[in-house]
Amino acid sequence: MIRLLIIHGPNLNLLGRREPGVYGSETLDGIHERAHRLAAEVGAELETFQSNSEGALIDAVQSAWGRVDGIVINPGGYTHTSVALRDALAAVGLPVVEVHLSNIHARETFRHHSYIAPIAVGQIAGFGGEGYLLAIRALTHHINTRKG
Amino acid sequence: MIRLLIIHGPNLNLLGRREPGVYGSETLDGIHERAHRLAAEVGAELETFQSNSEGALIDAVQSAWGRVDGIVINPGGYTHTSVALRDALAAVGLPVVEVHLSNIHARETFRHHSYIAPIAVGQIAGFGGEGYLLAIRALTHHINTRKG
Amino acid sequence: MIRLLIIHGPNLNLLGRREPGVYGSETLDGIHERAHRLAAEVGAELETFQSNSEGALIDAVQSAWGRVDGIVINPGGYTHTSVALRDALAAVGLPVVEVHLSNIHARETFRHHSYIAPIAVGQIAGFGGEGYLLAIRALTHHINTRKG
Amino acid sequence: MIRLLIIHGPNLNLLGRREPGVYGSETLDGIHERAHRLAAEVGAELETFQSNSEGALIDAVQSAWGRVDGIVINPGGYTHTSVALRDALAAVGLPVVEVHLSNIHARETFRHHSYIAPIAVGQIAGFGGEGYLLAIRALTHHINTRKG
Amino acid sequence: MIRLLIIHGPNLNLLGRREPGVYGSETLDGIHERAHRLAAEVGAELETFQSNSEGALIDAVQSAWGRVDGIVINPGGYTHTSVALRDALAAVGLPVVEVHLSNIHARETFRHHSYIAPIAVGQIAGFGGEGYLLAIRALTHHINTRKG
Amino acid sequence: MIRLLIIHGPNLNLLGRREPGVYGSETLDGIHERAHRLAAEVGAELETFQSNSEGALIDAVQSAWGRVDGIVINPGGYTHTSVALRDALAAVGLPVVEVHLSNIHARETFRHHSYIAPIAVGQIAGFGGEGYLLAIRALTHHINTRKG
Amino acid sequence: MIRLLIIHGPNLNLLGRREPGVYGSETLDGIHERAHRLAAEVGAELETFQSNSEGALIDAVQSAWGRVDGIVINPGGYTHTSVALRDALAAVGLPVVEVHLSNIHARETFRHHSYIAPIAVGQIAGFGGEGYLLAIRALTHHINTRKG
Amino acid sequence: MIRLLIIHGPNLNLLGRREPGVYGSETLDGIHERAHRLAAEVGAELETFQSNSEGALIDAVQSAWGRVDGIVINPGGYTHTSVALRDALAAVGLPVVEVHLSNIHARETFRHHSYIAPIAVGQIAGFGGEGYLLAIRALTHHINTRKG
Amino acid sequence: MIRLLIIHGPNLNLLGRREPGVYGSETLDGIHERAHRLAAEVGAELETFQSNSEGALIDAVQSAWGRVDGIVINPGGYTHTSVALRDALAAVGLPVVEVHLSNIHARETFRHHSYIAPIAVGQIAGFGGEGYLLAIRALTHHINTRKG
Amino acid sequence: MIRLLIIHGPNLNLLGRREPGVYGSETLDGIHERAHRLAAEVGAELETFQSNSEGALIDAVQSAWGRVDGIVINPGGYTHTSVALRDALAAVGLPVVEVHLSNIHARETFRHHSYIAPIAVGQIAGFGGEGYLLAIRALTHHINTRKG
Amino acid sequence: MIRLLIIHGPNLNLLGRREPGVYGSETLDGIHERAHRLAAEVGAELETFQSNSEGALIDAVQSAWGRVDGIVINPGGYTHTSVALRDALAAVGLPVVEVHLSNIHARETFRHHSYIAPIAVGQIAGFGGEGYLLAIRALTHHINTRKG
Amino acid sequence: MIRLLIIHGPNLNLLGRREPGVYGSETLDGIHERAHRLAAEVGAELETFQSNSEGALIDAVQSAWGRVDGIVINPGGYTHTSVALRDALAAVGLPVVEVHLSNIHARETFRHHSYIAPIAVGQIAGFGGEGYLLAIRALTHHINTRKG
Repeated sequence: MIRLLIIHGPNLNLLGRREPGVYGSETLDGIHERAHRLAAEVGAELETFQSNSEGALIDAVQSAWGRVDGIVINPGGYTHTSVALRDALAAVGLPVVEVHLSNIHARETFRHHSYIAPIAVGQIAGFGGEGYLLAIRALTHHINTRKG
Repeated sequence: MIRLLIIHGPNLNLLGRREPGVYGSETLDGIHERAHRLAAEVGAELETFQSNSEGALIDAVQSAWGRVDGIVINPGGYTHTSVALRDALAAVGLPVVEVHLSNIHARETFRHHSYIAPIAVGQIAGFGGEGYLLAIRALTHHINTRKG
Repeated sequence: MIRLLIIHGPNLNLLGRREPGVYGSETLDGIHERAHRLAAEVGAELETFQSNSEGALIDAVQSAWGRVDGIVINPGGYTHTSVALRDALAAVGLPVVEVHLSNIHARETFRHHSYIAPIAVGQIAGFGGEGYLLAIRALTHHINTRKG
Repeated sequence: MIRLLIIHGPNLNLLGRREPGVYGSETLDGIHERAHRLAAEVGAELETFQSNSEGALIDAVQSAWGRVDGIVINPGGYTHTSVALRDALAAVGLPVVEVHLSNIHARETFRHHSYIAPIAVGQIAGFGGEGYLLAIRALTHHINTRKG
Repeated sequence: MIRLLIIHGPNLNLLGRREPGVYGSETLDGIHERAHRLAAEVGAELETFQSNSEGALIDAVQSAWGRVDGIVINPGGYTHTSVALRDALAAVGLPVVEVHLSNIHARETFRHHSYIAPIAVGQIAGFGGEGYLLAIRALTHHINTRKG
Repeated sequence: MIRLLIIHGPNLNLLGRREPGVYGSETLDGIHERAHRLAAEVGAELETFQSNSEGALIDAVQSAWGRVDGIVINPGGYTHTSVALRDALAAVGLPVVEVHLSNIHARETFRHHSYIAPIAVGQIAGFGGEGYLLAIRALTHHINTRKG
Repeated sequence: MIRLLIIHGPNLNLLGRREPGVYGSETLDGIHERAHRLAAEVGAELETFQSNSEGALIDAVQSAWGRVDGIVINPGGYTHTSVALRDALAAVGLPVVEVHLSNIHARETFRHHSYIAPIAVGQIAGFGGEGYLLAIRALTHHINTRKG
Repeated sequence: MIRLLIIHGPNLNLLGRREPGVYGSETLDGIHERAHRLAAEVGAELETFQSNSEGALIDAVQSAWGRVDGIVINPGGYTHTSVALRDALAAVGLPVVEVHLSNIHARETFRHHSYIAPIAVGQIAGFGGEGYLLAIRALTHHINTRKG
Repeated sequence: MIRLLIIHGPNLNLLGRREPGVYGSETLDGIHERAHRLAAEVGAELETFQSNSEGALIDAVQSAWGRVDGIVINPGGYTHTSVALRDALAAVGLPVVEVHLSNIHARETFRHHSYIAPIAVGQIAGFGGEGYLLAIRALTHHINTRKG
Repeated sequence: MIRLLIIHGPNLNLLGRREPGVYGSETLDGIHERAHRLAAEVGAELETFQSNSEGALIDAVQSAWGRVDGIVINPGGYTHTSVALRDALAAVGLPVVEVHLSNIHARETFRHHSYIAPIAVGQIAGFGGEGYLLAIRALTHHINTRKG
Repeated sequence: MIRLLIIHGPNLNLLGRREPGVYGSETLDGIHERAHRLAAEVGAELETFQSNSEGALIDAVQSAWGRVDGIVINPGGYTHTSVALRDALAAVGLPVVEVHLSNIHARETFRHHSYIAPIAVGQIAGFGGEGYLLAIRALTHHINTRKG
Repeated sequence: MIRLLIIHGPNLNLLGRREPGVYGSETLDGIHERAHRLAAEVGAELETFQSNSEGALIDAVQSAWGRVDGIVINPGGYTHTSVALRDALAAVGLPVVEVHLSNIHARETFRHHSYIAPIAVGQIAGFGGEGYLLAIRALTHHINTRKG
């Protein structure tokens, strides 16, 4: 049984209510429900966490150590500014998949650079809530391949 | 009756005691007192909040949604570094006026750029505590105009 | 009695007729009328000047010396290109408040930098014609405080 | 039945033989076999194309017009240099998903920028051959959602 | 008796367990023990604090005011991104010595710039846990010299 | 009958006498004569203006409003430095064709960028006096197409 | 009799069908028809070529040597990326006029720079298909002047 | 007899009254008096001109053509922004010596670059009013050497 | 017997006829003749290839795999723009010597950067056709040393 | 017994006499006296060298090879400009501690970058002459640790 | 009696023989002869020094301390690269006039920046050997004014 | 008989002993021996010089004037920082070939730029000691061709 942690950064608690024209009308709960169904299907156990606080996100990353096998993270606005979050992810040494709802490469220039990407396995951007499902598949596949 | 929220970012709790040669000797309480008097005068109701934590500031912005008509914010040092705070303000979609005590454009280069300005109604910088009063006037005027 | 000079740079004579969707339908005359009323209220005397010529604006700034107590200036397109206008303002040594109708920090990159801001008391941007009224308040307050 | 075209840019014909320590030992044929199985499973029909020539890739994009419903493309080295390939993809107006075997955001700086990303639905990077399967899922989901 | 505060930023709670090949196997407790011994030797009293939260670190800096004579700080990842932490340190006006376990000038480019250094007495980088002891010596010497 | 205004910026009054090796020996009068003949031929009425003063050029642009159908402008040295002239052209909202005698893209780097180009219909550079004739054709064609 | 070669770069074969809202509904064939009529009128003979391949375009430029008197080229996306195409044009030493359908100076930044312009006689941009006719006039005039 | 023209740009009419701590207490008239004495001594005839208007300065440069043998110019703030003034000086082709009262290379970065310097014989900066006298000597020497 | 492949990029087929003042009058055939003589002398077998097409050059690099011991390449204009060609050379893993006829470091800035150099054994530039002979010596020496 | 070499770069011979307001009144001899006392205390033998010549400093570094166990260097102005001095230090391969009297990170921008730091064990800046004593402690500790 | 030191940097010993087309045919001895005559005339005593070595130039600057009243320096190629020479000049605190034979602002970009200028009284560039005579006048005038 | 001078810059005296893993185990004497043999073979006379001092290297270049026919130089670390050495080489006007042991284009960014390359005949980098032999061949060939 693979254990995964999904971490959502700042403002993602507003999902479904925030600029639905851009991000769709699915809430975080809706995504979690779909994610749990997929996890069951591919043999994984899921835990989720959201916070607007950089420190709380770092705490969550640290506490994942020895308890889960991989992390799916959408660092929101901290993607582009947080060396500390990157250091936390590098410190625990778990495989990380970075997810973005929107295609950050097609938005403002300051959203093109990610402090997280260089220490992640890979990045998935632009597919809305569906991106988390793709990330669960990608991470499970990565962990199984490494284990096998 | 217009409802406004004034948000002060990091270190502004030190106002009046911090580098008085630069920022004057007025405390945050002194400013709030004057702000409440002006609010009463222009028919507005005022709420204030200060925190040194980026996450707590984002929480405050989110909780303002559906409860107030506009936000006056002095993001302090987060002005120049927080994409997450900007995203929170953009998400709730309330009119925002950005205030700075000092003239940030005449200080160090890294203080010239603001992540908040592009999503604000306007920016007021360089008038000390007086800037909050100007912002209340500007924001009230903006809201009344939009309503009318 | 405080004497103030309001200076408008290039193209502001078109106000009210130029891109009303962006700048509103108020003309320069309308703004002046409101400005005179506010000036009377706060005990100030007002003079206004507009020109499309960089040289004529510099002449106006120089001629203000010893005759007025402060300058409100909207340098229009010269904001971003005129070292000479900045030098004139620095030379006469009067307190200056910079006004912009639109939020220049949210427009094209070349409008983010101001040669005037570093030698101004402060900058007010994004409130349309209302910005001139805020500037009169700010400048009057600044002069009275310095005098007191 | 959804029709998809997978386009591989320069050097991807070497897959499996090229730096296996970095890219794994799976060949393009191996990936295609797995892709066809997944396509069948999600109700899609698959066509594939590889070329080292920028012009031939543009021809392939143009010829897809009116014949397929979406494109999965790994533009290889042209990702970072080809305005012409981007223009071709923009011209045909089909939904595009960009795939990279390696995590380009963790490699040399000149690989961080993509001319393709701003006109793509999204980007998937860092999961090796598995990335194409994720892209097929993402693109199928995108097309079905738009159709429904 | 000189009173000193040692502040550790994000991820330093992992010390000794995090990438021991790079940072050595000494834990934060081990460093604190050695630091207390040295403090006793040079006639100083020591207090320590660690947090992953930028806001909590700023709170700690502010609360040091009037209570300690100097601060030794290892801002971790916030070194490179936090204007707010710098402002807090500048506001309390205590002498600050900046410490880094690794030689940040020999690592990734984004670690070469420090927001803290320009307002610190000095910076010590590259000596592992030993750096804190050097900092205690440097800060004690600095305070005694100023007092004398 | 289409009415056109040709505006020449600074130093163009020297044409024919200034560096004839580079610009040819034709004077501004010679060009105007040929321009009037072509205008008659394509059914247009022509007005011309030259000034070395940025302000006077802006005045000319503003006064064209409601009086002509399009502007051909060679902004000379102001091409690269005048935000104010650009704002004037944008404000009157007439179709503009930008002309340069020399191929500015093949000269010093500071001549490669034009503030005018982004708000013009198009740019013609490198054909000497002939460029004005090409511009009259292009502008007439543009206006007729829009009218038709 | 003057012989001219018109070269069209990548994606221009889609003309008339590609984003008609931007580029108009005229096809390449339509433009060629009009171009041949104008050529006859001004005493020129016309040859045309289109390819999506950078190498094929270079071959076409090289083969023009000694066979035609001048080249009209719309390098499409290669305008901004091809040093090789520029070198080919410089090598054959024929007069070149660069044409762009849209006003490239008013589009994305990466379209503002042209590798071709510095070795061209001049550049015409922003007049749609009409630009080719203006270019034929300009090039014919240039060749006749040089010959005379 | 050598004829020289001294041109002063914007704000130099304030000399002696403007920031005397920086520029000294000598007025433009005082400098002219000394300049005329030196001119007589070295066998030169002197004419002087000052304006705040860029256009008027260009007019003055153009009118010098065929009437004087050389130009001493202090372009003031236009030094750093005026391509048009540079073009005028290049067009008349007279030897030019550039003068600055202050050492512009020791002031703000935007004052380090001069559009005039590349087309001048040389530059003299930092010697106050004395700089004009040095320039008269330098220019007279340059003209005599060329004539000889 | 060492087997070498010499690859020439775009426009090098024009050698001897193209700007002989710069590149000398020797043709590609002349160079090949001298190269074959030298190859025989140092015990090497030579194959040569030229193309104007980026894709064809990549094909040639790939086909060299397992067939030759080293590559001498003059990538012409693709030196500065082709990530794809670099990737091909890196993929086949053969020792590469980069040759340029002219001293690219003394020409336009955009010719100073090479995508090929970082994955080459070394670079030889500025010696005309002679550079290929030096490259053959250097590559032969490199291969023999590695083998020995 | 550990042998250390202290190297002082250009202008440090002026210490104590040069800008005492900035650097204190202690001379190089005074620092050496204190350094020798500390060296004796920590079991080290000390040698010192000062020169204004880059070449002489490189000679000194080279001659240290095989004779000392570590180098403390204050490269003065060469810190920011000398690749050759860095190469010398890298070549001899001894542990190096970089010292600066002032906090170079808080001075002019061109003093923020050090060519030496990336190849040093660590950097100590901002503690005046005390910095050399800290460096001796740091270097001794480093050498003992490595030896142990 | 004012005592002055003229310092010439690298390659100036070649004067008169080096590129006479650019620098004229006057040797360093010729300039010194003229300089001595002028010095006598304005009541100054002159000493001269030339070296190709950065260290020797710094030694010369240091040894001037307390012995001369001002320095005229042509730092040659070290102008653009030597922080150490600048520090030496700043340390001795004597008034410095910077001279360049050629107009450095009209040459390669890397010659536009001077490390010396920000700590000099002023800069004279572009007048060949005559520049030294102008510098002697300027420096004598500066010293006399300060003394008076 | 052709006379050549080989100049080695700083740290090259350590060759063979310095980082042999990177530069090989051949000493400068070994290279000189091979160089003399080749020189004899191609009819050249050889002189060699090494120094760590920038000034001494400039002296050596100057003294070569009129005595040798060409210079082979490996400027070591001064390649990237010495305008003065470049000026010396330009002044004597002899043909120069620049040599680097390692492939500087594949190392740190600050080693990619050479002040010497723009005034050299050509550059050879990446072939270890063998590079000097290639340079002797290239320079001899260059001199013979020019003479012939």
